[in-house]
Amino acid sequence: MAMVARFHLARLACAKDNVPYVIPIQYAHSGIRLYAFSMPGKKLDFLRTNPRACVLIDDLESRHRWKSVVLDAVFHELPSTGQRDDERLKAWTLLSDDVDWWEPGALKPQAQPTVAVSPHVFFDLEIITASGREAAA
Amino acid sequence: MAMVARFHLARLACAKDNVPYVIPIQYAHSGIRLYAFSMPGKKLDFLRTNPRACVLIDDLESRHRWKSVVLDAVFHELPSTGQRDDERLKAWTLLSDDVDWWEPGALKPQAQPTVAVSPHVFFDLEIITASGREAAA
Repeated sequence: MAMVARFHLARLACAKDNVPYVIPIQYAHSGIRLYAFSMPGKKLDFLRTNPRACVLIDDLESRHRWKSVVLDAVFHELPSTGQRDDERLKAWTLLSDDVDWWEPGALKPQAQPTVAVSPHVFFDLEIITASGREAAA
Repeated sequence: MAMVARFHLARLACAKDNVPYVIPIQYAHSGIRLYAFSMPGKKLDFLRTNPRACVLIDDLESRHRWKSVVLDAVFHELPSTGQRDDERLKAWTLLSDDVDWWEPGALKPQAQPTVAVSPHVFFDLEIITASGREAAA
Protein backbone atom coordinates (compact mmCIF):
# COMPACT_ATOMS: atom_id res chain seq x y z
CA MET A 1 0.00 0.00 0.00
CA ALA A 2 3.04 2.30 0.09
CA MET A 3 2.50 2.96 -3.59
CA VAL A 4 -1.11 3.97 -2.97
CA ALA A 5 0.02 6.57 -0.44
CA ARG A 6 2.87 7.91 -2.56
CA PHE A 7 1.00 8.30 -5.83
CA HIS A 8 -1.82 10.69 -6.65
CA LEU A 9 -2.66 9.62 -10.17
CA ALA A 10 -4.70 6.53 -10.96
CA ARG A 11 -7.02 5.09 -13.56
CA LEU A 12 -10.53 4.50 -12.32
CA ALA A 13 -12.79 1.90 -13.90
CA CYS A 14 -16.52 1.67 -13.32
CA ALA A 15 -19.34 -0.22 -15.03
CA LYS A 16 -23.01 0.31 -15.79
CA ASP A 17 -25.17 -2.43 -17.29
CA ASN A 18 -21.92 -4.38 -17.69
CA VAL A 19 -20.41 -1.69 -19.93
CA PRO A 20 -17.03 -0.65 -18.50
CA TYR A 21 -15.61 2.88 -18.50
CA VAL A 22 -12.13 4.03 -17.51
CA ILE A 23 -10.66 7.48 -16.95
CA PRO A 24 -7.69 9.05 -15.18
CA ILE A 25 -8.28 10.52 -11.73
CA GLN A 26 -6.25 12.28 -9.12
CA TYR A 27 -6.76 11.22 -5.56
CA ALA A 28 -5.62 11.71 -2.00
CA HIS A 29 -5.24 8.70 0.24
CA SER A 30 -6.18 8.28 3.88
CA GLY A 31 -6.60 4.94 5.65
CA ILE A 32 -8.77 2.61 3.59
CA ARG A 33 -10.13 5.42 1.41
CA LEU A 34 -9.13 7.38 -1.63
CA TYR A 35 -10.65 10.83 -1.90
CA ALA A 36 -11.34 12.54 -5.18
CA PHE A 37 -13.74 14.91 -6.86
CA SER A 38 -15.30 15.19 -10.26
CA MET A 39 -17.43 17.46 -12.33
CA PRO A 40 -20.82 15.92 -13.19
CA GLY A 41 -20.61 13.55 -16.15
CA LYS A 42 -20.46 9.95 -17.31
CA LYS A 43 -18.17 8.77 -14.52
CA LEU A 44 -20.56 9.98 -11.81
CA ASP A 45 -23.55 8.68 -13.71
CA PHE A 46 -21.96 5.22 -13.80
CA LEU A 47 -20.80 5.24 -10.16
CA ARG A 48 -24.12 6.49 -8.83
CA THR A 49 -25.85 3.62 -10.63
CA ASN A 50 -23.27 0.99 -9.66
CA PRO A 51 -20.85 1.90 -6.87
CA ARG A 52 -18.38 -0.90 -7.61
CA ALA A 53 -15.08 0.55 -8.83
CA CYS A 54 -11.60 -0.66 -9.69
CA VAL A 55 -8.55 1.56 -9.33
CA LEU A 56 -5.24 0.94 -11.07
CA ILE A 57 -2.10 2.64 -9.84
CA ASP A 58 0.91 1.79 -11.95
CA ASP A 59 4.49 2.80 -12.50
CA LEU A 60 5.76 1.35 -15.77
CA GLU A 61 9.38 2.33 -16.22
CA SER A 62 10.32 -0.42 -18.61
CA ARG A 63 9.53 -4.03 -19.39
CA HIS A 64 11.95 -5.11 -16.68
CA ARG A 65 10.98 -2.60 -14.06
CA TRP A 66 7.34 -1.94 -13.33
CA LYS A 67 4.86 -2.26 -10.53
CA SER A 68 1.14 -1.93 -10.24
CA VAL A 69 -1.57 -2.07 -7.63
CA VAL A 70 -5.18 -2.91 -8.40
CA LEU A 71 -7.79 -1.90 -5.84
CA ASP A 72 -11.34 -3.13 -5.72
CA ALA A 73 -13.33 -0.33 -4.17
CA VAL A 74 -16.80 1.00 -3.45
CA PHE A 75 -17.85 4.54 -4.37
CA HIS A 76 -19.43 6.79 -1.76
CA GLU A 77 -20.55 10.25 -2.67
CA LEU A 78 -19.89 13.01 -0.16
CA PRO A 79 -22.94 15.23 -0.63
CA SER A 80 -22.54 18.96 -0.35
CA THR A 81 -24.92 19.07 2.57
CA GLY A 82 -25.78 16.53 5.18
CA GLN A 83 -24.14 14.17 7.57
CA ARG A 84 -20.78 13.83 5.91
CA ASP A 85 -19.63 17.46 5.92
CA ASP A 86 -16.61 16.51 8.00
CA GLU A 87 -15.48 13.99 5.43
CA ARG A 88 -16.09 16.40 2.60
CA LEU A 89 -13.88 18.90 4.37
CA LYS A 90 -11.27 16.23 5.01
CA ALA A 91 -11.33 15.25 1.34
CA TRP A 92 -10.94 18.86 0.29
CA THR A 93 -8.03 19.39 2.65
CA LEU A 94 -6.20 16.23 1.57
CA LEU A 95 -6.72 17.02 -2.08
CA SER A 96 -5.59 20.60 -1.64
CA ASP A 97 -2.38 19.39 -0.07
CA ASP A 98 -1.56 16.61 -2.43
CA VAL A 99 -2.89 17.10 -5.88
CA ASP A 100 -1.75 19.19 -8.81
CA TRP A 101 -4.90 20.06 -10.65
CA TRP A 102 -4.58 18.73 -14.13
CA GLU A 103 -7.82 16.75 -14.16
CA PRO A 104 -9.80 16.99 -17.39
CA GLY A 105 -12.45 19.64 -17.04
CA ALA A 106 -11.39 20.49 -13.55
CA LEU A 107 -11.27 23.89 -12.04
CA LYS A 108 -9.70 23.96 -8.65
CA PRO A 109 -12.58 23.84 -6.20
CA GLN A 110 -13.31 27.03 -4.35
CA ALA A 111 -11.74 27.61 -0.96
CA GLN A 112 -13.39 25.92 1.98
CA PRO A 113 -16.00 28.55 2.88
CA THR A 114 -17.70 28.18 -0.49
CA VAL A 115 -17.03 24.52 -1.16
CA ALA A 116 -20.66 23.69 -0.39
CA VAL A 117 -21.84 25.53 -3.50
CA SER A 118 -19.14 24.25 -5.84
CA PRO A 119 -20.35 22.15 -8.80
CA HIS A 120 -17.65 19.61 -7.97
CA VAL A 121 -18.82 16.34 -6.49
CA PHE A 122 -16.56 14.93 -3.81
CA PHE A 123 -16.43 11.20 -3.28
CA ASP A 124 -14.44 8.51 -1.64
CA LEU A 125 -13.48 5.06 -2.85
CA GLU A 126 -13.43 2.61 0.02
CA ILE A 127 -10.81 -0.03 -0.63
CA ILE A 128 -12.11 -3.61 -0.33
CA THR A 129 -9.09 -5.53 -1.61
CA ALA A 130 -5.66 -4.62 -2.94
CA SER A 131 -3.35 -6.71 -5.06
CA GLY A 132 0.09 -5.73 -6.23
CA ARG A 133 2.47 -7.00 -8.87
CA GLU A 134 6.05 -6.02 -9.45
CA ALA A 135 9.08 -6.72 -11.60
CA ALA A 136 12.48 -5.27 -10.77
CA ALA A 137 15.47 -6.01 -12.98
CA MET B 1 -7.16 8.57 -33.70
CA ALA B 2 -3.59 9.73 -34.32
CA MET B 3 -2.89 9.14 -30.67
CA VAL B 4 -4.22 5.59 -30.88
CA ALA B 5 -1.80 4.82 -33.70
CA ARG B 6 1.18 6.49 -32.05
CA PHE B 7 0.85 4.96 -28.60
CA HIS B 8 1.27 1.33 -27.60
CA LEU B 9 0.38 1.52 -23.92
CA ALA B 10 -3.19 1.71 -22.69
CA ARG B 11 -5.35 0.86 -19.72
CA LEU B 12 -8.01 -1.72 -20.44
CA ALA B 13 -11.20 -1.93 -18.42
CA CYS B 14 -13.59 -4.84 -18.49
CA ALA B 15 -16.52 -5.90 -16.31
CA LYS B 16 -18.08 -9.13 -15.12
CA ASP B 17 -21.35 -9.18 -13.18
CA ASN B 18 -21.02 -5.38 -13.07
CA VAL B 19 -17.68 -5.58 -11.23
CA PRO B 20 -15.09 -3.55 -13.15
CA TYR B 21 -11.43 -4.47 -13.56
CA VAL B 22 -8.63 -2.39 -15.07
CA ILE B 23 -5.06 -3.26 -16.05
CA PRO B 24 -2.32 -1.89 -18.28
CA ILE B 25 -1.92 -3.45 -21.72
CA GLN B 26 0.31 -3.02 -24.69
CA TYR B 27 -1.29 -3.04 -28.07
CA ALA B 28 -0.68 -2.65 -31.77
CA HIS B 29 -3.18 -0.71 -33.85
CA SER B 30 -4.54 -1.48 -37.31
CA GLY B 31 -7.70 0.01 -38.77
CA ILE B 32 -10.56 -0.24 -36.30
CA ARG B 33 -8.80 -2.84 -34.14
CA LEU B 34 -6.24 -2.96 -31.39
CA TYR B 35 -4.28 -6.21 -31.16
CA ALA B 36 -2.88 -7.54 -27.92
CA PHE B 37 -2.14 -10.74 -26.11
CA SER B 38 -2.37 -11.95 -22.56
CA MET B 39 -1.50 -14.87 -20.39
CA PRO B 40 -4.58 -16.66 -19.01
CA GLY B 41 -5.98 -14.91 -15.94
CA LYS B 42 -8.65 -12.61 -14.57
CA LYS B 43 -8.64 -10.25 -17.56
CA LEU B 44 -9.39 -13.06 -20.01
CA ASP B 45 -11.92 -14.59 -17.66
CA PHE B 46 -13.79 -11.29 -17.55
CA LEU B 47 -13.57 -10.59 -21.30
CA ARG B 48 -14.66 -14.09 -22.27
CA THR B 49 -17.73 -13.71 -20.08
CA ASN B 50 -18.50 -10.15 -21.20
CA PRO B 51 -16.73 -8.90 -24.34
CA ARG B 52 -17.48 -5.21 -23.74
CA ALA B 53 -14.27 -3.32 -23.05
CA CYS B 54 -13.13 0.25 -22.57
CA VAL B 55 -9.63 1.40 -23.46
CA LEU B 56 -8.01 4.56 -22.12
CA ILE B 57 -4.98 6.03 -23.86
CA ASP B 58 -3.67 9.10 -22.11
CA ASP B 59 -0.72 11.44 -22.10
CA LEU B 60 -0.74 13.52 -18.94
CA GLU B 61 2.16 15.92 -19.02
CA SER B 62 0.79 18.46 -16.57
CA ARG B 63 -2.46 19.99 -15.45
CA HIS B 64 -2.31 22.38 -18.38
CA ARG B 65 -1.18 19.96 -21.00
CA TRP B 66 -2.81 16.58 -21.34
CA LYS B 67 -4.85 14.56 -23.75
CA SER B 68 -6.77 11.34 -23.59
CA VAL B 69 -8.77 9.06 -25.81
CA VAL B 70 -11.43 6.68 -24.53
CA LEU B 71 -12.44 3.81 -26.79
CA ASP B 72 -15.49 1.66 -26.36
CA ALA B 73 -14.57 -1.69 -27.83
CA VAL B 74 -15.57 -5.33 -28.19
CA PHE B 75 -13.20 -8.18 -27.37
CA HIS B 76 -12.62 -10.95 -29.90
CA GLU B 77 -10.34 -13.82 -29.08
CA LEU B 78 -8.04 -15.08 -31.82
CA PRO B 79 -7.94 -18.81 -31.11
CA SER B 80 -4.73 -20.69 -31.66
CA THR B 81 -6.37 -22.88 -34.26
CA GLY B 82 -9.23 -22.28 -36.58
CA GLN B 83 -10.52 -19.73 -39.01
CA ARG B 84 -8.70 -16.69 -37.77
CA ASP B 85 -5.09 -17.87 -38.16
CA ASP B 86 -4.41 -15.01 -40.56
CA GLU B 87 -5.47 -12.47 -38.01
CA ARG B 88 -3.49 -14.16 -35.28
CA LEU B 89 -0.42 -13.94 -37.47
CA LYS B 90 -1.18 -10.32 -38.26
CA ALA B 91 -1.53 -9.57 -34.57
CA TRP B 92 1.73 -11.29 -33.81
CA THR B 93 3.52 -9.39 -36.57
CA LEU B 94 2.17 -6.01 -35.53
CA LEU B 95 2.96 -6.64 -31.90
CA SER B 96 6.45 -7.84 -32.72
CA ASP B 97 7.13 -4.65 -34.59
CA ASP B 98 5.66 -2.19 -32.17
CA VAL B 99 5.72 -3.34 -28.63
CA ASP B 100 8.39 -3.41 -25.98
CA TRP B 101 7.54 -6.40 -23.87
CA TRP B 102 7.10 -5.15 -20.38
CA GLU B 103 3.66 -6.62 -19.79
CA PRO B 104 3.14 -8.13 -16.34
CA GLY B 105 3.67 -11.83 -16.52
CA ALA B 106 4.59 -11.73 -20.17
CA LEU B 107 7.22 -13.69 -21.89
CA LYS B 108 7.76 -12.68 -25.45
CA PRO B 109 5.71 -15.09 -27.53
CA GLN B 110 7.64 -17.65 -29.45
CA ALA B 111 8.58 -17.00 -33.03
CA GLN B 112 5.90 -17.52 -35.64
CA PRO B 113 6.36 -21.22 -36.36
CA THR B 114 5.51 -22.17 -32.78
CA VAL B 115 3.06 -19.42 -31.94
CA ALA B 116 0.22 -21.91 -32.20
CA VAL B 117 1.38 -23.73 -29.09
CA SER B 118 2.19 -20.65 -27.03
CA PRO B 119 0.19 -20.21 -23.80
CA HIS B 120 -0.44 -16.60 -24.83
CA VAL B 121 -3.93 -15.73 -25.91
CA PHE B 122 -4.11 -13.26 -28.76
CA PHE B 123 -7.12 -11.02 -29.07
CA ASP B 124 -8.38 -7.93 -30.78
CA LEU B 125 -10.44 -5.06 -29.48
CA GLU B 126 -12.78 -3.77 -32.16
CA ILE B 127 -13.34 -0.05 -31.67
CA ILE B 128 -17.00 0.97 -31.57
CA THR B 129 -16.67 4.60 -30.57
CA ALA B 130 -13.80 6.93 -29.76
CA SER B 131 -13.89 10.17 -27.80
CA GLY B 132 -10.95 12.44 -27.16
CA ARG B 133 -10.28 15.29 -24.77
CA GLU B 134 -7.37 17.65 -24.73
CA ALA B 135 -5.91 20.64 -22.96
CA ALA B 136 -2.91 22.52 -24.29
CA ALA B 137 -1.53 25.49 -22.40
